[in-house]
Amino acid sequence: MIVTIVGAGRLAEGIAARALAGGHRVRIVDDEPGKADALVAALAARRQRGGAPESGSLSRSVATVGEAIAGADMVVLAVPYPQGRLLAREQGAALSGVTVVDTCNPVDFSTFDSLLTSPGMSAAEEIAAASPDARVVKAFNTTFASVLVAGWVGGMPVDVFLAGDDPEAKALVAALVTDGGMRPVDTGPLRRARELEAFQLLHMTLQGPLGLDWASALKLLP
Amino acid sequence: MIVTIVGAGRLAEGIAARALAGGHRVRIVDDEPGKADALVAALAARRQRGGAPESGSLSRSVATVGEAIAGADMVVLAVPYPQGRLLAREQGAALSGVTVVDTCNPVDFSTFDSLLTSPGMSAAEEIAAASPDARVVKAFNTTFASVLVAGWVGGMPVDVFLAGDDPEAKALVAALVTDGGMRPVDTGPLRRARELEAFQLLHMTLQGPLGLDWASALKLLP
Repeated sequence: MIVTIVGAGRLAEGIAARALAGGHRVRIVDDEPGKADALVAALAARRQRGGAPESGSLSRSVATVGEAIAGADMVVLAVPYPQGRLLAREQGAALSGVTVVDTCNPVDFSTFDSLLTSPGMSAAEEIAAASPDARVVKAFNTTFASVLVAGWVGGMPVDVFLAGDDPEAKALVAALVTDGGMRPVDTGPLRRARELEAFQLLHMTLQGPLGLDWASALKLLP
Repeated sequence: MIVTIVGAGRLAEGIAARALAGGHRVRIVDDEPGKADALVAALAARRQRGGAPESGSLSRSVATVGEAIAGADMVVLAVPYPQGRLLAREQGAALSGVTVVDTCNPVDFSTFDSLLTSPGMSAAEEIAAASPDARVVKAFNTTFASVLVAGWVGGMPVDVFLAGDDPEAKALVAALVTDGGMRPVDTGPLRRARELEAFQLLHMTLQGPLGLDWASALKLLP
């Protein structure tokens, strides 16, 4: 499938690496064109060095978000919370019927002590409200970039927790996760994003005290 | 230390098993005296069969909650949310200065879709408010009973997530966890219980769909 990733930061790199490993076509776009170009170059260089076998194709970054969305099977919002919400509103028409993956964590990064969303509401639900015709799936908000780049944790497949109200969209995201060698964990309706975002706040606050260096992962063990 | 467990259900059994393995003295009390007696008998029988080496001592159940609290180093509330809050209020004087472990999950069990607490508030904080002189620590709310009885998960020590505002009380609970062969994960102040309770709602909702049979565990992997 064609996977458009909006944002060219570390999380975008991680998701792109797994999508490429899964054989998908990846487009990367960012408000800063130089940033997208740099990530595309870095991903291409890693493939040439020959790490994990990656059979997907990597598009050059395109000029605008609108161009990157057109024809994509999935649009991954790998941007901070406020930008994702804004983008969902601005691109509402273009995202109609499209599977949109919200990855954000609406953490108050000035305190690392609370979420910016209202209690009882998730960023994913806000994004779905801002772009009501999009098929929004919460995913990749509990997986740090370095874990995605590595593709595994403790010798086991990375757990990617999903939440969404559209079964087909969720199946598409689950396929992306599985193709990338990870394990999708379907947590139910989109409102479960409230719990996924809450727990990731806690996961983030543990990084410093436990010296985890943003490389830890939550695993659900049977 | 002397660990009083209020409640004689499955979670009490799990916590008692680990406390005994850690060499502590365990008292069990329940509103239904027969229930506490049955659990004491079951724990004693398991020790005689000689499973894991357990060096602690197991008290006969005592008549009242007040008697069980008196002289205890730690009081574990292994009762459902409404009862725990009520008990914290009723036993406020007796719990003054005592390390109280809140294990509850305020899940709406009629729907398994939401928490009974107000958004932005945790059961642990409510219990602390109901018994303001107690030293409340959230713990064991993310660990299912069968996982505690087993004492490990996937060949690794069970992670027990803690939250609390009193460092000494939290250290005492961490010692109980460590003595029982598990790993304490200090998540910070008591308000982090909001995230711990939220995530356990999600963990519970996954049991049926994923066929986990209430035997799964969340592990934080580096």
